[in-house]
Amino acid sequence: MKVFILYAHPEPKFSFNAALLERSVATLEAQGHEVKVSDLYQMKFNPVASADDFSERRFPERLQYDREQKHAVAHQALSSDIAIEIEKVEWCDLFILQFPLYWFSMPAIMKGWFDRVFVNSLHYGVGKRYETGGLKGRKAMVCLTTGAYEAMLQPDGMMGGIESILWPIHNGTLFYTGFEVLPPFLACSPVHNGQEACDNYLNEYAKRLEQIESTEPMAFHPLTDFGKDFRLKEGVTPRSAVHRRVTSKD
Amino acid sequence: MKVFILYAHPEPKFSFNAALLERSVATLEAQGHEVKVSDLYQMKFNPVASADDFSERRFPERLQYDREQKHAVAHQALSSDIAIEIEKVEWCDLFILQFPLYWFSMPAIMKGWFDRVFVNSLHYGVGKRYETGGLKGRKAMVCLTTGAYEAMLQPDGMMGGIESILWPIHNGTLFYTGFEVLPPFLACSPVHNGQEACDNYLNEYAKRLEQIESTEPMAFHPLTDFGKDFRLKEGVTPRSAVHRRVTSKD
Repeated sequence: MKVFILYAHPEPKFSFNAALLERSVATLEAQGHEVKVSDLYQMKFNPVASADDFSERRFPERLQYDREQKHAVAHQALSSDIAIEIEKVEWCDLFILQFPLYWFSMPAIMKGWFDRVFVNSLHYGVGKRYETGGLKGRKAMVCLTTGAYEAMLQPDGMMGGIESILWPIHNGTLFYTGFEVLPPFLACSPVHNGQEACDNYLNEYAKRLEQIESTEPMAFHPLTDFGKDFRLKEGVTPRSAVHRRVTSKD
Repeated sequence: MKVFILYAHPEPKFSFNAALLERSVATLEAQGHEVKVSDLYQMKFNPVASADDFSERRFPERLQYDREQKHAVAHQALSSDIAIEIEKVEWCDLFILQFPLYWFSMPAIMKGWFDRVFVNSLHYGVGKRYETGGLKGRKAMVCLTTGAYEAMLQPDGMMGGIESILWPIHNGTLFYTGFEVLPPFLACSPVHNGQEACDNYLNEYAKRLEQIESTEPMAFHPLTDFGKDFRLKEGVTPRSAVHRRVTSKD
């Protein structure tokens, strides 16, 4: 497989995230996979979507970002730092997002990667959503670290379930653009728990990656589950507590 | 009331977001409120959390961002752009976040505002979470625009419910740091629906803001709903589909 790892952590060397990244690259290469890494902090990646992203504009007087994305794709007018990242994500079979959880989400430098690199008409937009998304045929997985304890991330835990926390990323970003989404890998409070806990997580992650080709994706609703009114069709069972039927109790 | 509006949109003038912002400032001031705005694009706000945020370090050899936040608070060593924003948010009674929905979340330039401005020991951290959060006594509200239709944002809609989409912001960021969270204001597909739809949303938003002082906050679980195991106590009814009890079906 071709594996593209999108990585963001502000400490360049001595972090548990850096150890996870190193271990994942070694494990994947030992399995015969080809690996590319975008280390966003090291690249000093610009996360701010703006008019500067387009060398030519369809509507120069008024920035509508998604419409300019479409125009720029058609006219090869995307900024080169975006074009380079698009090549990597389109090259891969497996896309791994690795980051420390900041405010129940990814660090801004990674959020902006998606704002700028997943572009209208190529990856999403009319006719491209969920199973018809522009990146279909690929798998994706989140690998995250957090200071929270595992119990806090259970559905009835203090933070709510990790499935709920990652919904905007899993369903709203990855599944939305066509990826099959594999279950996330979580390292909870690794640093607070000492070296042995860290080593255990590193070993567990390596094992996950060795089995990655046979890992079952998570279930999200495909387009065909929705009616013309954009609601779940009668008879379709909601796949998660997040994505649920409206009942009279609502 | 003192109202602080955090605003992010890449088009400086001719956007529906700019119109919403203008209308909200006018409406709030007409009600006698005092208003401050941070227009993140105009400010060219830096959204990337990094070692540069601290003029003095506790652990210079290895960046642990949250621990350095704590140290920097104690030693007045936070970067001045962060300190200025902290003053604004601590000044306010009502905090409004206004943004276009990008990938089921806020644009990166705003995500990074939270990564950098909500700091350990001041706003979150040991002893500061949910009703004990450092920003308690304040209210917060999200105002967002989206290309999606209203039907898509229903709980059984194509995107999942807006409550699920905003969970990381509502519960994980605002309620987490002590805010009472007011129901969000959504403008769905305003631009695609023409001038009349835009005007209706502007009027509706003005009405919402005129009634803001008597608006009931949304319900999230306070700390006291959780046991020592960080899970909902027996007998506590889950407040949303997002934050639910584990049943045998899980």
